[in-house]
Amino acid sequence: MVRLDFRFEEIDAIINARSLAIVGASGKPLKFGSLFTASQLAFGFSGPLYLVNPSEKEIMGHPCYPDLASLPEVPELVYIAIPAYRSLDILRECARLGVKGVVLLAAGFREMGDKGAQLEMEAVSIARNGGFRIIGPNCFGIYNPRNRLTLLPGHDFSGVPGEVAFISQSGGFSAQVARMAGDLGIHFSAVVSYGNGADLNEIDLLRYFDLDPATRVISAYLEGTSDGRGLFEVLKAAASRKDVVIWKVGKSESSRRAAASHTGSLAGATSLWEGLFRQCGVIEVSGVDELCDVLLALKHLGRRPGRRILISGGGGGLGAYAGDLAEAEGLEVPLLHGDAESRLRVILDYPGASVGNPLDIGTPLIHLPLFEAAMREAALNPTTDALVFDLALNFALGLAGEAGVEAVADVLIKVRRETGKPVILVAYSRALRLGDMAVEELSRRVRDKLLSGGVLVYPSMPRAMRALSLVNR
Amino acid sequence: MVRLDFRFEEIDAIINARSLAIVGASGKPLKFGSLFTASQLAFGFSGPLYLVNPSEKEIMGHPCYPDLASLPEVPELVYIAIPAYRSLDILRECARLGVKGVVLLAAGFREMGDKGAQLEMEAVSIARNGGFRIIGPNCFGIYNPRNRLTLLPGHDFSGVPGEVAFISQSGGFSAQVARMAGDLGIHFSAVVSYGNGADLNEIDLLRYFDLDPATRVISAYLEGTSDGRGLFEVLKAAASRKDVVIWKVGKSESSRRAAASHTGSLAGATSLWEGLFRQCGVIEVSGVDELCDVLLALKHLGRRPGRRILISGGGGGLGAYAGDLAEAEGLEVPLLHGDAESRLRVILDYPGASVGNPLDIGTPLIHLPLFEAAMREAALNPTTDALVFDLALNFALGLAGEAGVEAVADVLIKVRRETGKPVILVAYSRALRLGDMAVEELSRRVRDKLLSGGVLVYPSMPRAMRALSLVNR
Repeated sequence: MVRLDFRFEEIDAIINARSLAIVGASGKPLKFGSLFTASQLAFGFSGPLYLVNPSEKEIMGHPCYPDLASLPEVPELVYIAIPAYRSLDILRECARLGVKGVVLLAAGFREMGDKGAQLEMEAVSIARNGGFRIIGPNCFGIYNPRNRLTLLPGHDFSGVPGEVAFISQSGGFSAQVARMAGDLGIHFSAVVSYGNGADLNEIDLLRYFDLDPATRVISAYLEGTSDGRGLFEVLKAAASRKDVVIWKVGKSESSRRAAASHTGSLAGATSLWEGLFRQCGVIEVSGVDELCDVLLALKHLGRRPGRRILISGGGGGLGAYAGDLAEAEGLEVPLLHGDAESRLRVILDYPGASVGNPLDIGTPLIHLPLFEAAMREAALNPTTDALVFDLALNFALGLAGEAGVEAVADVLIKVRRETGKPVILVAYSRALRLGDMAVEELSRRVRDKLLSGGVLVYPSMPRAMRALSLVNR
Repeated sequence: MVRLDFRFEEIDAIINARSLAIVGASGKPLKFGSLFTASQLAFGFSGPLYLVNPSEKEIMGHPCYPDLASLPEVPELVYIAIPAYRSLDILRECARLGVKGVVLLAAGFREMGDKGAQLEMEAVSIARNGGFRIIGPNCFGIYNPRNRLTLLPGHDFSGVPGEVAFISQSGGFSAQVARMAGDLGIHFSAVVSYGNGADLNEIDLLRYFDLDPATRVISAYLEGTSDGRGLFEVLKAAASRKDVVIWKVGKSESSRRAAASHTGSLAGATSLWEGLFRQCGVIEVSGVDELCDVLLALKHLGRRPGRRILISGGGGGLGAYAGDLAEAEGLEVPLLHGDAESRLRVILDYPGASVGNPLDIGTPLIHLPLFEAAMREAALNPTTDALVFDLALNFALGLAGEAGVEAVADVLIKVRRETGKPVILVAYSRALRLGDMAVEELSRRVRDKLLSGGVLVYPSMPRAMRALSLVNR
């Protein structure tokens, strides 16, 4: 199938669709159609939303239409959530009616072998002749907080529009990233799960988000591409203007097998991809956690905030551990500037404390004015690009209760604001038992407060160091 | 100071002490002494527990004695929780009375330079002349569920005795490991935070736990040692009989600085240590999480359960991702045996599923009898040493509610029992917001059920793959 020229407006009409029909909407529990219908109804699409299913009259209190032709208007976007072999008839109806775009949920196309590939070619051919574009098949489609569109299972996704785009060949990961990032205050221009990319593929979507004025950071989960040269060009262009973060799988034999049977993708040679990313200035990540960690760092610190970190906490072991992690990640843990060191010696003048970098304040919580003075000196120290403080949460909680932990957070926010230096809190919650939910709740509350106050928070030291390293590449 | 010959009974008398005095016990909030007193009182020491503080009459409802000489008996173990410069007088009193052991909490000894080193030598010299042994200084001391001793801040530690010993130069990490491991059902023979190791050091303690019949797994956090040869010998002996897991810091310049100022340790060359561990058959880990992950794998799978894993889940992306992680960790993701493959093709005969390794069941939750049949075939497949199933928890929850997630757990437990093959569940909780505590609670409940049923659970795929890799070394 010949690929069409790129047209921003065509993709924009789908992503920012003003009307939507769900074909295969369902109210029956345990069905995909039901989950997606319920998600979109709960999320509240900003324009008209039509449910289509010939065997239902009403779904969750909303009227249901027998077919697309019966709708009061032609919807801009049609979500087809029925099996592959029945999708083609609906696509033909879409062509007749003149819709702008279709999201094709079903699996059973290219990834299933020759017969599926034939079906996929027919689907694209119908779209070509009908003058509309397809996202999918074998995908979830789009989450866009601006028009409150979510074809992903995400009734609880953030409704706040943001600057990050995420495109993904995996539907599951698209939902995981949308949910998790949203919970950390990372908001999206859009998330697009595009599966097999039969018509619109990674190159079209990356180019779209490169041109989209709402998007500042472009991220992607890729299994492969059919056009390495095209991908290189679009990544290079995008990364010259925006932050680009890519998670590429298919580096191992078994992963390449999985990618082929998942989205029919050819994963390509690992070294080629790594070279491509390096050349383009793309940040390469692995996994949902690492991706979200980097998005969080980009939001709070931007790109290349500096490699020199000052490590602090109450306890010597954590400094020794963090130092190993930092240097293994290519970060620097430089000696303190002489003046800062002298001033810190006056402030932390008691057994158990140790002035240097790492800076050990001795116990997780010390007298607050001392803590504030020490953190201020540590941040202002000229060899500090970023201050990383490790709070032993359970220990601090035992010493000074929730108020004590909240007070530490307040000091860090103050130091962040007053010094202008990046501050990162690492707050392990080491209470994992069923009866300890209060600790988890406190740690989330404190995290939200810190993130609102401009202090970056990570749940472990390896994740903090890795994220700091990646945004500095 | 000349080191004494190793005597099992001397250390045993301290770790399994039958009577205890806390000097510096306190009821004042925000004091270390108060935290430790409250912890030990709440944990409920199995023998007589005496609180000593000349300025208090009663602490938390318990009588308080002015000094050790006023106690109705000579305690076997004395916990000295007062500043360094005042500790020596108490040590002299211990010598006069004839106690068996002392745990010295205070910092301000060797790690503070020459004056501190002098003080430390004096402390050891008093113990030598008085015929007792010291743990510390600059440490928390001992947690032992058998005599319900906890000098660590751990009123909520597990009271169940177990087979794992952990020794640590860091007090903070000793508490983190004790708490976290306990919450995962890993129980301890004892945890010993020994700080500077002025008298009893890592070599004594490793040797003790090697000989201790209650201990089957020995783990340690080390900053350095003063006797490399001695450490090599004790590790080699221990690792020939028991599983030994070591977390060694001091691999970087900044970490070596931190270790020196933390416990006065010389960290030594990294390559030397790595060679030593390899030669001895020690599992080397990094961080509290990784240590606990390995302890959990050792508990459920033992050492070297086999490198060939079968990866499964509902979604193609997770297989592609997990395959990359597995092979990067030196695990194998082999093709299915022909017979198992044929049988799985009959069971998973629908679009979205993909039979192979990785094995994609298409969606996070499928019809339960199908799921059970597929998991059984996957486990029984002759090239499967361990079955790893990735449950997209939030997605599964959306599709089938809590009952659906619990049902998946029941199937995995059944498959584990009936096939005898190791089964590992990776269950990400991707709902991190304050209002989503129910998801976290469900994930902990399901984790506990699975662990009780012999199914290993990890919170992320990288951690699962790393742990499987480490126990196979």
